[in-house]
Amino acid sequence: MARAEETNDQLCAAYPVRGGDGPSSYAVNSVYQRGAVAAAKEFISKAIEEKLDMEILLSSKTFRIADLGCAVGPNSFFSAENIIEAVQLKYKSQGLNSQTLEFQVFFNDITANDFNKLFRSLPSNRQYYAAGVPGSFYGRLFPDASINLFHSAFAIPWMSQVPKAVMDRNGPAWNKGRIFYSDASDDVVSAYEAQNAEDMERFLHARAQEIVSGGLMVFFIPGRPDGTPHSHTLPNVIYQILGSCLMDLARKGVVDEEKVDSFNIPNYLMSSKELESAVERNGCFSIERRENLDNFFAHDTVYKNPQLLASQIRASLEGLFKQQFGDEILDELFELYGKKLEEQQSMVESGKAVVFLVVLRRTAN
Amino acid sequence: MARAEETNDQLCAAYPVRGGDGPSSYAVNSVYQRGAVAAAKEFISKAIEEKLDMEILLSSKTFRIADLGCAVGPNSFFSAENIIEAVQLKYKSQGLNSQTLEFQVFFNDITANDFNKLFRSLPSNRQYYAAGVPGSFYGRLFPDASINLFHSAFAIPWMSQVPKAVMDRNGPAWNKGRIFYSDASDDVVSAYEAQNAEDMERFLHARAQEIVSGGLMVFFIPGRPDGTPHSHTLPNVIYQILGSCLMDLARKGVVDEEKVDSFNIPNYLMSSKELESAVERNGCFSIERRENLDNFFAHDTVYKNPQLLASQIRASLEGLFKQQFGDEILDELFELYGKKLEEQQSMVESGKAVVFLVVLRRTAN
Repeated sequence: MARAEETNDQLCAAYPVRGGDGPSSYAVNSVYQRGAVAAAKEFISKAIEEKLDMEILLSSKTFRIADLGCAVGPNSFFSAENIIEAVQLKYKSQGLNSQTLEFQVFFNDITANDFNKLFRSLPSNRQYYAAGVPGSFYGRLFPDASINLFHSAFAIPWMSQVPKAVMDRNGPAWNKGRIFYSDASDDVVSAYEAQNAEDMERFLHARAQEIVSGGLMVFFIPGRPDGTPHSHTLPNVIYQILGSCLMDLARKGVVDEEKVDSFNIPNYLMSSKELESAVERNGCFSIERRENLDNFFAHDTVYKNPQLLASQIRASLEGLFKQQFGDEILDELFELYGKKLEEQQSMVESGKAVVFLVVLRRTAN
Repeated sequence: MARAEETNDQLCAAYPVRGGDGPSSYAVNSVYQRGAVAAAKEFISKAIEEKLDMEILLSSKTFRIADLGCAVGPNSFFSAENIIEAVQLKYKSQGLNSQTLEFQVFFNDITANDFNKLFRSLPSNRQYYAAGVPGSFYGRLFPDASINLFHSAFAIPWMSQVPKAVMDRNGPAWNKGRIFYSDASDDVVSAYEAQNAEDMERFLHARAQEIVSGGLMVFFIPGRPDGTPHSHTLPNVIYQILGSCLMDLARKGVVDEEKVDSFNIPNYLMSSKELESAVERNGCFSIERRENLDNFFAHDTVYKNPQLLASQIRASLEGLFKQQFGDEILDELFELYGKKLEEQQSMVESGKAVVFLVVLRRTAN
């Protein structure tokens, strides 16, 4: 009997994406992510057209899709629609009546996600049955062989937890004066690497059981370009600057320095090699397609607008920061952050970024 | 292609059960309902033991359960566990290894339900995969033939909407000076009857498509005892007294009388005949078992405690009242209600009540 895994869910639950409808809420600020999803619509369509087995389509009247790390929409709805459209097209192209096919979409995120908001904003004209699934995607979420297609956009870099070694005050990976791995000591970097490897192992192991044989997984994963150091990778640069703001506040006495030392953002950007070797180690999936979206971040105007960037980062991290430092420092912190991003804009703009677009197929077991 | 029905969901969404954790929240006050669920555990066990086809159990490794009108738990979790335990027992009794069977439980309620709270309180040691499904159960919620067992406890009396005729200011069923049908004119009663008949038709029609052939539905439905007038049925008495409190406040000028006239609680208690004829009209289900729990409400001590009763009714109706009358009258209204319930306790205690326990089976289509 499968037992829902809660450990990591509880850990992850500490870091919900910000719900609600306020000006710095995720839904308002996720426009830049939708840009990527729109750009990647063609990738989804082609993946399904070329890689989806007709056998899977014909084996059941219901096609089940799961989106992992859905947040509160609306990108997740947009992806679901793209996938369904492509599957229907494929079905029709075989001379079949796509009216007979039904879709069920499972929206997954950690338990602390604002599912109420997600549910309220489900498109009223949706052509699928919707369900919400709370829990960490590093554990089992679905019954055996019950999902036809997994999708995840921008969620996989979120780790199941801050590596334990980094939380050990007396160990070599104690991350004093920093909140992230990319500008930290080799010990910290190693701890993050190891955590990512372990997480990917658990992620792929769970999915391998949940997906039907021959089923596809379509992932959009922000990563680290080959040959680019951690500290020069664009999203990392942005976190590093945020860490330096916290240290400024610590020096001013606004924030307890101990709290900065013990705080770490559980996010890790894989290289293409790390991604490939995780898939190889798992052994249940073939890489059917891999593209790099090199210039996505570079073309995103948000990186040319420090104030907007600060408010987007606030939207995605506010829950995490509130828990560690309290509500009251947030305005000062993110005001300073906006200023620093402006001062260091050339550093931001020189940061290298890549989004891996991958299609994996479950091999026969 | 099925299209999720939203009309009734939006109507129903007006009346969410109260979320949160406060002293008058649903979770705190649902203890009396749990009493019924506990008393009915045996009913569930026997229904599954005697009526569940082994064929259904053997047709898939995943057994899918849906609870309709789950609110925020915990009764819903309790029911899910009872059902799973009984199914496992049945499986074992056939010499099969119940470890190979997986369970997926879909928790359904209207979109305005507090799913965040529901998800946070899911038992951490649950032996099933959980999903939340927002939407009115008077429309389609699940793909064709995808559910093995439906369960619903105490939710079916909630109608999809207040009957349109009752909302017509110039029609004969305008419910002036009242908020409920049971003490109203024949025209109002007829409008509620007709709405219930229509709702049951839609409810059973949707379930007939969603359930597997031979699948079971186990329902606990508070109803009206045969031969008891609407106005003497226990839950109705309680709503009638609440209506008289609102009219008292209208006379005092605290509440606009027009608002009382246009306000109606969308809840209807069927007789056993109405229930039976709804099932017959639908034609897709056989009634496999029907028991009446006659003395459930009579034994429930809440009916001997006017203050507790007032706070329970407040918990379940607060959303509805807030929307129509505003937040500010609630304390005064429910204080008066507690007093009136105390004054009219003999009337409350003389109210007749029944809970129908029914098991329906999907006949072959």
